[in-house]
Parts: sequence; structure tokens; C-alpha cells
Amino acid sequence: MSDLDPVDLTAKLVRCASVTPVEAGALELLHRLLSEAGFDCAWADRGEVRNLFARWGSKGNERIFGFNGHTDVVPIGNEADWTMPPFGAEIKDGVMYGRGTTDMKSGVAAFVAAAVDFVRDTPPDGAIVLAITGDEEGDAVDGTTALLDYMTAAGERMDVCLVGEPTCPERMGEMIKIGRRGSMNAHFRVIGKQGHSAYPHRAKNPLPAMMRLMDRLASHELDQGTEHFDASTLAVVTVDTGNKATNVIPAQCSATINIRFNDAHSGASLSGWLQAEADKVATEFAIEVGLQITISGESFITPPGPLSDLVSRAVAAETGVTPELSTSGGTSDARFVQHHCPVVEFGLVGQSMHQVDEHVQIAHIRQLKAIYSRILRDYFA
Amino acid sequence: MSDLDPVDLTAKLVRCASVTPVEAGALELLHRLLSEAGFDCAWADRGEVRNLFARWGSKGNERIFGFNGHTDVVPIGNEADWTMPPFGAEIKDGVMYGRGTTDMKSGVAAFVAAAVDFVRDTPPDGAIVLAITGDEEGDAVDGTTALLDYMTAAGERMDVCLVGEPTCPERMGEMIKIGRRGSMNAHFRVIGKQGHSAYPHRAKNPLPAMMRLMDRLASHELDQGTEHFDASTLAVVTVDTGNKATNVIPAQCSATINIRFNDAHSGASLSGWLQAEADKVATEFAIEVGLQITISGESFITPPGPLSDLVSRAVAAETGVTPELSTSGGTSDARFVQHHCPVVEFGLVGQSMHQVDEHVQIAHIRQLKAIYSRILRDYFA
Repeated sequence: MSDLDPVDLTAKLVRCASVTPVEAGALELLHRLLSEAGFDCAWADRGEVRNLFARWGSKGNERIFGFNGHTDVVPIGNEADWTMPPFGAEIKDGVMYGRGTTDMKSGVAAFVAAAVDFVRDTPPDGAIVLAITGDEEGDAVDGTTALLDYMTAAGERMDVCLVGEPTCPERMGEMIKIGRRGSMNAHFRVIGKQGHSAYPHRAKNPLPAMMRLMDRLASHELDQGTEHFDASTLAVVTVDTGNKATNVIPAQCSATINIRFNDAHSGASLSGWLQAEADKVATEFAIEVGLQITISGESFITPPGPLSDLVSRAVAAETGVTPELSTSGGTSDARFVQHHCPVVEFGLVGQSMHQVDEHVQIAHIRQLKAIYSRILRDYFA
Repeated sequence: MSDLDPVDLTAKLVRCASVTPVEAGALELLHRLLSEAGFDCAWADRGEVRNLFARWGSKGNERIFGFNGHTDVVPIGNEADWTMPPFGAEIKDGVMYGRGTTDMKSGVAAFVAAAVDFVRDTPPDGAIVLAITGDEEGDAVDGTTALLDYMTAAGERMDVCLVGEPTCPERMGEMIKIGRRGSMNAHFRVIGKQGHSAYPHRAKNPLPAMMRLMDRLASHELDQGTEHFDASTLAVVTVDTGNKATNVIPAQCSATINIRFNDAHSGASLSGWLQAEADKVATEFAIEVGLQITISGESFITPPGPLSDLVSRAVAAETGVTPELSTSGGTSDARFVQHHCPVVEFGLVGQSMHQVDEHVQIAHIRQLKAIYSRILRDYFA
């Protein structure tokens, strides 16, 4: 039997228009392919989301290598802006175009191809688990969490997990992600009393208190970075009043900040600080200051160790590049997996993800399969 | 010949639906009435605005008393909200209802009635000038300024001028206005560079600079008041960004402030200060800060003296109340007149002006005519 072609598999997946939460045949295709290759497959659907669990080898094995990825994609936006069909997987000058070619149907295809070949040619003394969701780009409520809940209920586990998201900023092989900063949003509302600009003493302008509060928050240094993390950042993302009349003092003003925080903080510690700052300004200006906080995710890390060493060595051997171990960037489903086992992320160059004319170099898909294959060989060696 | 009834004249004027700049017969009515009473009348129209100039006595007189007012009114808003017809001038329980009953058809009617009776019964050794515009509530570009331009061109003048705007906050007779603070608006725009909240070093957030700038402006004490003026005030009236995405650092932020300033400042001195503060923040944050300033009016004053004494004595004699000489409140056409001669403002209680069910007490109209009559008698005595 010949090797499974990751480029052909990527193309087949891209032709499934699986915009979250539509499955569009992508997971069905993988279910069929993995079943034929000897994987035990099961659906871990929740809500309107399909999720595929697949395991080669018995669940009682001593060593179980896990892979997490997704087949859903973000919407194409304005189709007229695309120069290539967004679900065509057309190849031109060594580059395949289409939604999901980078994020992350190629990553899923590369790992599936690597795993199918590996278990056929050199059946390992262990098990390989794939947890592939159809809800990573959406709310991610019924996606990887549903898969992990299914696994817990079914007595399944992974000893380590590789997430196949695009991780390289510009050059193939340059970055592995070993964790992520936490993220939270805080919405402030200062509530005063409307009045005429000519008689400010009869009104209570909410803006001076808001300006002072935002100035303090924006100029506060949260930290200078920790061992594995960059410095935490706080961005005032919007301040709005909506008052069109220059002779009117407005009644209210709202503002939103976004904090990306490292392991020197937690959502709770930052919430306490923000509430204290809000209270302080409320007292100083004798005004009402409301605060609503949404914690999108805490920071997490798989400290440099056996798993990141394994992936780094494989990347270096196949690309000649020694990858940086990074905790930068936005969120990913690794934030759910990290509660279960050590997890790192490695995948393609992500530059065109979510954009018009998303594309991937054919050579990179093959290189990624080679890296994933080497990771499996080394893990079970 | 019987005395001219100011209540009847107010009602006739209110029934003319003279929403700026529509004349609706109001000025025509006054032209006819004043001509019949021996006044020389002339139109000082400009653009789409009608303006009435009237003089009793020759323009070469040694003493010329001037009156300035307007017959245009603000729109009625939602007619369904009125409980009385907005142009009906209906009287109920001693109160007349309708748009312009307070601001300021009653003031015009009271002075016209006082002047017509006065010149008929006791022809003065001097002249009386009325400058009545149809554009005070609008842009005021073609209104009192057009009348003053006409007068200059025609060799007309006033030695003193009384503006008949409502000036009393709550009780008849309690306030004469001898000047006004200046007013200006400043629009700031901080222009940065959009980016992702997770990578603030690749973006340039305009909000921290704007917060610092507005905090500085709002907490700056302009002055503590001057001899005849309250302290100047600065109100940040709106700050807006319009960024709905918490993971995006916005490119721009705008803010508007309104300053009401006394004679310790000028529009130019404040503009210089604002530009310096904008430049300072631009340097500190290495960011672009745009500033646009609109000066609505400079501060002005007719210092307490013969004219305010004359009006105060008449008010006190007729009402028993000693009026406060004030420079508070919004703008009026006195800002144009002050360039020509001493000017003070005295009129009715202004509480219902510009509101639904605008109204005036019948007794107050008669009292106002009595005050204006006494002012004329005393001026020419």
C-alpha cells in the first residue's frame, strides 16, 4: 500500500465547505479513512457540533500520543475579493489556495497521513489518539471540550498532545508554542448626571473620572515578563460617549480594556486590581463606576521538557531550523487540553490564515507530514 | 387713543408660526403697527432672513435708546407632546401657552407697547430705535448682525441698548445680564495605528495619549472667577472610539471639549494653551494629535454703570426685587450689540423656553411693559 498523500487529503478537506459549525463531510471523510486504517472511531458530538475521536491501539496502553486539531474554518468574507475559488483547493505555482489550507486542514491532513502510514509500516508499542473538532473557530464550547469530556467518560486518555495549529510567524519551523498568555476583557461604565455645558456644577460629568481611570490603567506596568512569558499587556481598546451636542454634559461613558497576562497574574488577581482602581476613582470623583469582567482564559504553560524537546528535535532535523519555544499569540484549544496532559503546538506558517486567498505551500504540507512522522517515530522509539 | 395691550400683541405674534427663518407675518405686523405710531420703518433683510429696523425721532438726536429682540422661534418638536396648540396663544388660568410666549414674543410686544404709548403720550427729546430680527434662534448670521450692518451703512446708531431676552431664572425681576462668558469648542483627534490586542507593540494605540490629554485638560483650573464673572469652566463633552472588537487596538480616537470662559481669557489665549497641551502629549506619546477649534463667541461685559443702574431701578420699582447683575448663561445677540454701545438684557422668567407647552404668565407681560415704560421715562427724563 502506498503512502497517504497529505496534499491530496488537504485538497479533499478544503473542498468540504465546513464553515463553523457546518461539518460538510470533512469529519466523515476522516472517520472513513481512519476506520479503514484500523483506528477505532467514535463521534463525540455536542449541540450542533460534530467531533471525531479516533484511537489506534488499545486505550490501556502505557504510552498514548495525542493529536488535537479542527476541520472547521472561518467564513470566506466577500467572495468577490478572492482571486481563487475559496473551496476549490486549486494549485498554482506550488501553492494551494482555499479557506482552511493553512488553518488548519493541512495540519490535520499531515498528521492523519503520518499516523496512518506509521501504524501500517511500524505498528508502535502504544496508542495514537486523534481528537478532531468541528468547533474551534466558533464559540469552542461544544468542540475540544466535548471531546475531552467524552474521553474522560469513556476512560480514554492522552499522555502527551500535539496541537497542529499554524505556529510559525514567517519561516517554516521557527516556532513551537508551549503555552499562552491569559486574556480578559473589562468593561467600565461611569455614570454621572446629564446637564448643560454652561452650568457644569448642576451636572456630574462622567468623563473626567473615566479619563483618570483609563490613564492610570494604561500607564501601569503589570510586569516585565516571566521566565517563559513576555510582559503582560493592557490595551484600552475603546472609550465611547456618543454625545453629539457640545452644549450637553453626558450622563454616561463606557470603556473596554483587554489584558493579555502571563503567569505572574491570574484572572482573579487582575480582577481584584481593576475593581480596586475603579473604586478608587469612584471615591476621588464621588461618582458611580461600574465594572464587568470577562475572563477568556487563564495563562498556561507546558514548561520546556520532554515533549517540547521531542518536537524541537524533529523540526530541526526536517527543516534545519531550531524552533523558538514561545508563549505568544492569541488563544487556541491547547487551553483546554492543558488540563489533561502536557501539550505543545506546532504547525505551518500562519501568515494567510483568516485572510482572503488563504494559501499553503505544497512543499510545506509534505514537510509537515515528515515532521509529524518523525515525532511519532521518536516518541515510540 | 387707548394704551396698546401687550397681551393682545403677544397673542397676535404667537399666532404667526415664525420658526426660524420663516417670518410668517410677525415682522409685517410690527412694521404696520410701528409705522402707524409714527416710527420710520425699514427692512434690513439678508439672505432668507427678514429684519425690521424702526426709529421714532430723528437719527441725529443726542440721546437714542435702542431695543433688540427677535420674533423667530425654535421648532415645536413633537406636536403630539403639546397639551395646548403650539401657535394658538390660548390663555388658561392667567397663563398664555404657545411657542415664543416666553422667548421672546412677549418681550418684543411689551417693549413695542411701551414705546408706542410713550412717544404718543410724552414725546421724548431724543429717539427710540428697535432692531427686531427673524434670525436669533438659527445661525444668527443674517439677523442682528445684518441689522447692525444696516445701521452703520445708514448712519443710524443707538447710545444704549436693551435686549429683551428672558433673563430671570425663577422669579420676575431677579436677574439682569450685563455680559456673557465666551464659548468655544475644541475637537481633538489622536491618530495611531490599528493592530491586534495581543501584539500591542506592533500597533500604536491612540487611547492612552487621549486619556492623558483629557485628564490634564479636565483637571486644569482655568481661573477662580473675575470681578464680574464666575470661574471659567471646561467640560469634556464626548470621547469616542467606536471600536467593537476587544481584540483590536483602534486606529483613532476623537474627543470634544467645551469651554465657557470669562474675561481672564480670550479665544486666542485658550487656543494657544490647547495647542500646547496637544503638542506636549503628541511628543510624550510620539503620536499624531489633531486639533480643530471653533470659537462661538468671546466674553463681553457692559460693566455696572448708568445703563444697568437705569434698568435695575425700574425693575426694583415695579417688582420690589433688586436684580442681580449677572454674566451667566448661554449666548445671545447682545454679543453683537456690545461692539456698538453699552448693552444689558432684561426680560421674563425663562424657565419654559424651548420646551413643550412654553408659556408665560399674563401678569408678567403687563409687568414687563411697565418696567420697559419706566426705563424709557427715566432714560429721557
